[in-house]
Amino acid sequence: MKKIRMGMIGGGQGAFIGAVHRIAAQLDNEIELVCGAFSSTAEKSIASGKQLMLDENRCYRDFQTMFEQEALLPEDQRMQFVAIVTPNHMHFPAAKAALENGFHVLSDKPATLNLDEVKQLKTIVESTGLLYGLTHTYTGYPMVKEAQTLVSNGEIGTVRKVIVEYIQGWLSEAQSSDNKQADWRTDPSRSGISGCMGDIGSHAANLVEYITSKEITHVCAELTTFVEGRRLDDDGIVLLKMQDGIKGTLQASQIAAGEENNLTIRVYGEKGGLEWHQQEPNTLTVKYLDSSTRVLRTGGAHSERTSANTRTPMGHPEGYLEAFANIYMNFISAIRDYEGGTYHKGKDYDFPDIYEGVRGMALVESFVNSSNQDTKWYDITPLLND
Amino acid sequence: MKKIRMGMIGGGQGAFIGAVHRIAAQLDNEIELVCGAFSSTAEKSIASGKQLMLDENRCYRDFQTMFEQEALLPEDQRMQFVAIVTPNHMHFPAAKAALENGFHVLSDKPATLNLDEVKQLKTIVESTGLLYGLTHTYTGYPMVKEAQTLVSNGEIGTVRKVIVEYIQGWLSEAQSSDNKQADWRTDPSRSGISGCMGDIGSHAANLVEYITSKEITHVCAELTTFVEGRRLDDDGIVLLKMQDGIKGTLQASQIAAGEENNLTIRVYGEKGGLEWHQQEPNTLTVKYLDSSTRVLRTGGAHSERTSANTRTPMGHPEGYLEAFANIYMNFISAIRDYEGGTYHKGKDYDFPDIYEGVRGMALVESFVNSSNQDTKWYDITPLLND
Amino acid sequence: MKKIRMGMIGGGQGAFIGAVHRIAAQLDNEIELVCGAFSSTAEKSIASGKQLMLDENRCYRDFQTMFEQEALLPEDQRMQFVAIVTPNHMHFPAAKAALENGFHVLSDKPATLNLDEVKQLKTIVESTGLLYGLTHTYTGYPMVKEAQTLVSNGEIGTVRKVIVEYIQGWLSEAQSSDNKQADWRTDPSRSGISGCMGDIGSHAANLVEYITSKEITHVCAELTTFVEGRRLDDDGIVLLKMQDGIKGTLQASQIAAGEENNLTIRVYGEKGGLEWHQQEPNTLTVKYLDSSTRVLRTGGAHSERTSANTRTPMGHPEGYLEAFANIYMNFISAIRDYEGGTYHKGKDYDFPDIYEGVRGMALVESFVNSSNQDTKWYDITPLLND
Amino acid sequence: MKKIRMGMIGGGQGAFIGAVHRIAAQLDNEIELVCGAFSSTAEKSIASGKQLMLDENRCYRDFQTMFEQEALLPEDQRMQFVAIVTPNHMHFPAAKAALENGFHVLSDKPATLNLDEVKQLKTIVESTGLLYGLTHTYTGYPMVKEAQTLVSNGEIGTVRKVIVEYIQGWLSEAQSSDNKQADWRTDPSRSGISGCMGDIGSHAANLVEYITSKEITHVCAELTTFVEGRRLDDDGIVLLKMQDGIKGTLQASQIAAGEENNLTIRVYGEKGGLEWHQQEPNTLTVKYLDSSTRVLRTGGAHSERTSANTRTPMGHPEGYLEAFANIYMNFISAIRDYEGGTYHKGKDYDFPDIYEGVRGMALVESFVNSSNQDTKWYDITPLLND
Repeated sequence: MKKIRMGMIGGGQGAFIGAVHRIAAQLDNEIELVCGAFSSTAEKSIASGKQLMLDENRCYRDFQTMFEQEALLPEDQRMQFVAIVTPNHMHFPAAKAALENGFHVLSDKPATLNLDEVKQLKTIVESTGLLYGLTHTYTGYPMVKEAQTLVSNGEIGTVRKVIVEYIQGWLSEAQSSDNKQADWRTDPSRSGISGCMGDIGSHAANLVEYITSKEITHVCAELTTFVEGRRLDDDGIVLLKMQDGIKGTLQASQIAAGEENNLTIRVYGEKGGLEWHQQEPNTLTVKYLDSSTRVLRTGGAHSERTSANTRTPMGHPEGYLEAFANIYMNFISAIRDYEGGTYHKGKDYDFPDIYEGVRGMALVESFVNSSNQDTKWYDITPLLND
Repeated sequence: MKKIRMGMIGGGQGAFIGAVHRIAAQLDNEIELVCGAFSSTAEKSIASGKQLMLDENRCYRDFQTMFEQEALLPEDQRMQFVAIVTPNHMHFPAAKAALENGFHVLSDKPATLNLDEVKQLKTIVESTGLLYGLTHTYTGYPMVKEAQTLVSNGEIGTVRKVIVEYIQGWLSEAQSSDNKQADWRTDPSRSGISGCMGDIGSHAANLVEYITSKEITHVCAELTTFVEGRRLDDDGIVLLKMQDGIKGTLQASQIAAGEENNLTIRVYGEKGGLEWHQQEPNTLTVKYLDSSTRVLRTGGAHSERTSANTRTPMGHPEGYLEAFANIYMNFISAIRDYEGGTYHKGKDYDFPDIYEGVRGMALVESFVNSSNQDTKWYDITPLLND
Repeated sequence: MKKIRMGMIGGGQGAFIGAVHRIAAQLDNEIELVCGAFSSTAEKSIASGKQLMLDENRCYRDFQTMFEQEALLPEDQRMQFVAIVTPNHMHFPAAKAALENGFHVLSDKPATLNLDEVKQLKTIVESTGLLYGLTHTYTGYPMVKEAQTLVSNGEIGTVRKVIVEYIQGWLSEAQSSDNKQADWRTDPSRSGISGCMGDIGSHAANLVEYITSKEITHVCAELTTFVEGRRLDDDGIVLLKMQDGIKGTLQASQIAAGEENNLTIRVYGEKGGLEWHQQEPNTLTVKYLDSSTRVLRTGGAHSERTSANTRTPMGHPEGYLEAFANIYMNFISAIRDYEGGTYHKGKDYDFPDIYEGVRGMALVESFVNSSNQDTKWYDITPLLND
Repeated sequence: MKKIRMGMIGGGQGAFIGAVHRIAAQLDNEIELVCGAFSSTAEKSIASGKQLMLDENRCYRDFQTMFEQEALLPEDQRMQFVAIVTPNHMHFPAAKAALENGFHVLSDKPATLNLDEVKQLKTIVESTGLLYGLTHTYTGYPMVKEAQTLVSNGEIGTVRKVIVEYIQGWLSEAQSSDNKQADWRTDPSRSGISGCMGDIGSHAANLVEYITSKEITHVCAELTTFVEGRRLDDDGIVLLKMQDGIKGTLQASQIAAGEENNLTIRVYGEKGGLEWHQQEPNTLTVKYLDSSTRVLRTGGAHSERTSANTRTPMGHPEGYLEAFANIYMNFISAIRDYEGGTYHKGKDYDFPDIYEGVRGMALVESFVNSSNQDTKWYDITPLLND
């Protein structure tokens, strides 16, 4: 077995998410970063690459050059997939170019800047037959996978009600101009039509669809910009209707002062309920009608899939980086199958792909559209059918 | 000083809430239960009264008889106020009769069966000048009072966002006919136009208005009856607008399988956030923008009002009965003032009164009306002005 | 049925524990405080009694007068038992006089000032045949009773190991002279030979013996006085041997700065473990070998005895006063039996009595003796046999 | 900058701790595993190495061969340090050989099989001047470093009392013979003179000395073997005396049924207390005398050293692997200094070294000796001076 070779677009010096991707990708020592177009200039890209101990020749000035040059390398040296970790507006052009040049893509979310782009991207993914993954990190946690398994096995009965929230406080104040991330995340041209809901509301939506295996069909949203002068929403509250009569609430905020990165989900069925908190991710609580409560912990005796996404025994806490690494590991297991000729679409590779990409963009657009209309319920189906 | 003499309507053998009221009323040994019309027949009422070690002569067949007979007793023996602990449809006639016969009233919530009745009741309270209290128990907790004080003192800055929820699971299944409480609570003629939202959604609304000192102005609600055959909602999810631009969510459920009595509130301001959970009521968490978190505990150094509603030192947990008793104690402090001629309306007696009664009924009606309309926002103001 | 009539010794104005006893005794409306010798002078006693709305004639100058005068009253008026809530050095003389005058006794702990006194008291209790109870409050909690039941039913298998701790921080600094309680609690002539271990270490020992139904047989203790000038220990750490090969640790502190009233117990058997925290007393955690954890909550489906000591449904938290009231209620159930002629010693009345009183004094003496010796283990058996 | 090249001894297929070391070492992409002697035969070693995608030529049959062969490689290719992850009895010979062949050593703990060996090892470390590190993982957690910093800065005042415990349940039953780890851990010839105390009690001791910066001077220990037929202790309870009058308890267990990997420490000073739990490692609670409590979280605003050991922002939980990786990162920062000629002993490189190795072995021997004697206190000083 050999390591899978990865290139990277974005993630130059000082970029938080780039460093996270690199740790996650290489955590299990099965992926090797071999090249990158880390920044907007050749100089900066090389500087970043050198710090990463990369060969200077493989630190490219831009992604187009990278695709061209890598394609010239011998097959057993050239990168096999590219990780895209730029601000949102670059996701589509980078992914498009990668696929068109024959490289698999693992993209930071959202898939693209808007729904139109993601539909184009879907067509490209399908026509190239290449692999496309999206880092909705939070579904990488073992206890999220266990929750999905339990719901799917009927442990809590038919699902009736969901409560999902993703609240942060880091944008409670007008940010100073030197916070790069805060800067682009609140700029519509780089972030898309929504701020908070696009950035983290979309994670919440993805999580609730993942665990319940049901789709959101209607939303009733109220998006707000609390901080004066900000150009995008920094808070959103939503009523949900999902398939099979499930109802619920989804909320996201970046002005919930004092909150860190509080993604929490509760799912209630006819026979019981589930509760999971991202900040203490190794605990999954299952509550039953007869008032008994069971606490499940990462590393305990769980489903095969959960165990396959766990690295340490009980009581040795896993965290965000390990969850992130699971997305990478599941993605490259598909690459290995692909290269070995055993890949087939029907198989559950357990990583978010272009399907989640399209749904994510449609949901964000739904939140914004719903917030702008006076009618209570907004049906997201037409967006998906266009 | 002498004990205040209380009568009771409802709360006969086997009634949960009647027993709770009796413990709460007498917990501080300043109130004495002297008479009651506990049940629908004289026989049952006497049987209940005897078990409570009451004089048989003061166990009445109905509340009208009680008011008449008590009025004939010497002033220093007759009851001074009546606690109404019947199913909802009896609250208005009992309270009306009590006030018209010169007795103060402490009523279980909701104040009446509907908005029309509560407006009538308000007129009667105002015209008699007698005292009227409503047992929105949860505002009786010391840490809720501390939260109100902190918000009011600007500790978390101008409030922007609230999240309040009251979720239970005890009605997850169609109830058997021998559960008396479940029976009347799901019967519109005895419970009112709403089940879950009337019973517990109203507590959530009261709590969020109490802590923020702001009123809910608009609601966008979706009420659902999940259990087949049930005649009233067993779940409700609501978007809120409150005074001064506050937004938030309110939800209540009685089909959140596995949940006990989970009333939780979070309030976020420009400078920080507050979090309180009824099931662990002695802890109040305050989170700050600079990412420090402070944990306050019942019995610690708090505001004067909080301390006045606390009985034990830190680490000696107080519970539901003590919170309930605080409502009683604050109510009789007003009675003592009233009887001593020092009562005046402007003073903060810190118990829910007819104002909260009217708001409660208007809010429940708003939830139902909003749920029935296709327009997103429902303005509750017209209901209050009618 | 009639209320049981109680007298009180100690607990005058400003005494914390007296107020707690009065609330606890009367919480269920089955006990009535009818008289008292609340303070060291007739004047103060009357002042305290008046505040409690007692008849001035029954506020006595001292306990001897109270016993004599009450004995002269008609049988259906005179007090039936006396609650002793004075500083420790008065417990023995008050209890002795009460029993010799024909009154049942419920005493605050410790039973007496020392082991010699408690042995005398035991003789008196046995010779009079009257009832004697001791308020080891913490065994009154429903979840403690459930823990005892689970262990006794073999839920966690044969017990191997215990960890019990009772840590507070309120004596971290040399106390000012106007803290009455701190004052006598650190005075050997009023408190006994031990400070911290006598006051709260004894509660920890009682709790571990109650839950396991096993006796401590050997101790290895280190008592320390951390605060300069203090005359008694303010911290104690102990290794334990109990019957049947159980080992463990017991520790108590009043200088664990920042701690409130943190009494925590963990018990491990061959098949699982139990964990209970007094500060969140409505939760009992049971852990199993196969790594599943079950959370039990007050008000859930439990043993009959646990349910009989619970007042409210799940999710309506009970606290310290309710636990305390359970001791009173269980004590008067024995009084009712006694008066009805159905009392017999073998029956489990579920309140701590003179047996626990003797063990408590022996354990405290063991802690002190062990701390003073160089040999590792101190056998407590000889103390009990003397 | 170039990656540091690491070799490994032990950690072949199926060995838990070997995999953990490899992830930890390479997590930050600054270390590269280049060779290994993974197993007891050349065949197995090569099989393990191939799975790790190593060059077959650098998968050696034993560590002696590895040292010799690696020494022949060009300086910029040969390994720079070796990680020792074998069972305990191999730690000393492997470390000794490595140092004597000029390689730095990072060893799994304990440093050696016994005190005599570790003293020899200390002499070798000192005479070679090479670097020696020991993976007491738990001091790698950011919040442990913050705790150490706070204590050291006087945040809780002069320390008086410590409570440290490390309890697991995985050895509650006699283990089947196919659990390799359980097998050697309970075999004195491979594990040393103590089972539970050597394996995890030593971590607890290291943690308490790290956070307080004080040494344990006397112990009073009781070690027990609860499971029949086991040859080493599976439980230990200890009273502690530390420098400057600190007292406390230390306990470890592997038969605390239902516990996972529960390492918990509390430290109390004159002004406040600290509490940290390994299973939720991102939270550090600081309690103050005035009854306020502050909750610190990984990623918040902390000391420079804490921040330097943190990878992700607040609310993105870090875990065991990240803590482990911090030991590696801090160790190679010393290697970089060493190779750059700027290493000097006085500098705080913040990883456990031979000093902790010697103390660890002396403490374990003290626990055993104390448990075997009848005198209460055992002074560990003579062991260190021998």
